[in-house]
This record gives sequence, structure tokens and C-alpha cells, in this order.
Amino acid sequence: MQSGMIPILKVGGILLASIQTELNDTSAQAFQQDVLKAIERTRSRGLVIDITGLDMVDTFVARILTDSGRMAKLMGTETVLVGMRPEVAATLVRMGFSMQGVHTALNVDEGMALLATLRSSRDGE
Amino acid sequence: MQSGMIPILKVGGILLASIQTELNDTSAQAFQQDVLKAIERTRSRGLVIDITGLDMVDTFVARILTDSGRMAKLMGTETVLVGMRPEVAATLVRMGFSMQGVHTALNVDEGMALLATLRSSRDGE
Repeated sequence: MQSGMIPILKVGGILLASIQTELNDTSAQAFQQDVLKAIERTRSRGLVIDITGLDMVDTFVARILTDSGRMAKLMGTETVLVGMRPEVAATLVRMGFSMQGVHTALNVDEGMALLATLRSSRDGE
Repeated sequence: MQSGMIPILKVGGILLASIQTELNDTSAQAFQQDVLKAIERTRSRGLVIDITGLDMVDTFVARILTDSGRMAKLMGTETVLVGMRPEVAATLVRMGFSMQGVHTALNVDEGMALLATLRSSRDGE
């Protein structure tokens, strides 16, 4: 079903994509397409992208990840990027890159919790 | 009553516009006028625009849709854009377009639910 190698699982009402191998330009773009199709297919209202496994994120890949979040948002789905390593965060900030349009959290659990909060504050208090 | 070909139905207290045919510049502008007139006439406090049927949305049409949402907002009506396809979302983000001023949701049901929440959080508290 998926063109890329990154597993995208449905957990509860949420999609969980765990990136375990370094992304190059091609695999990052394939991932973006897969994730959007998965949202359409599963009608999930939340997406967690786990990048704990990434030791390096260049600006191209960072842009693809944030763009994916913005695209998901246009489709009606909130995205949380989790597990960014300190070195990755430091590099991105030094390069003047901000992850505008996506939420961030420490790990998958926190990301799931954040999505639940966003959802309940949207659905009624 | 309506100058365009896009049906605008009143469902509950909400207007539902389901766009089934591709929009060109003229039909998009006619739709915008129709929607604003329908809001004035029906005094609906919520508007759902369903674009599931659109395989392509250029920036002109996207701008007309978001502008319609902003205009509706000025009239006191919240707009939720629902059913955006992955390819459409991808293209709009790549062109640097954001749907600022309108809410998004996965489908008509979610859009209706979101409007109900927005309304109750506005009416309550």
C-alpha cells in the first residue's frame, strides 16, 4: 500500500509515523505523500511524527516535515513532531529554521496527549 | 434564487455548500456572492464548504474560498472548509498558500461538530 519504507500505523484515532532511518530527499517526499494518503484513507484527526531515530535533519527534510504538517492541517488534521534530538534542534535553530505550523512534543506519549488535548478543546470543554 | 450552480443548503442552523464541479474564476466569484447572500438571508451562524469533489484548486480559487470565509466571519459566521484532498493540500502548501482565517476539518460531519463547538464556546463562558 505504501510507496515508502516508513511505517504509518493507526493507533486509536491517531496516525503514528516512526522514522527510523535517515531520510534523503526522495524518501522524505515519498513519506509526505504516504502520510497524506493515509490521512485521507483513515480519516485520522491527529498525526504524530516520531523522529527520535534521526541523528541529522537537513533543512530540506525539515521543510518537508513541516510542510507535511501544514498540508495535514489543510485537510483537517493536527500534526505533532516528537523526539527531536538536542543536536538536531540546535542545528535547525542556528540555520534560522522554525517549525511553524506543527506542534512539537518530547516523545510519542506526550504527542498523543497533546493531540487529545487539542481535540477536546476543539470538541468542547 | 441563486446565480451559481453550487447548491447551498440550510441544515440545522448551518449552511452547507457542497462544491461538486471544478470552479473557474467566474463560478468561484458567483459562489462567493451566493454564499454571502445566503448568510444574510438565512442568518446562519455557521458555514461548511465541502470541497471533496475538487481534484484541483488553483490559488485564485483558494483565495476566493478563504476570502469568503473571512467575509463570512465579518458578518458573524464561522466557516469550516472540509474534504480537501491530499494533492490539493500539497499543491497549496508548496505554493506558499495558507488558509488563514478559515477552519479546516476532515469531512462534513467533523465540520458540523467543529462549528457546534465554536458556537458553544462562544455562547458559553
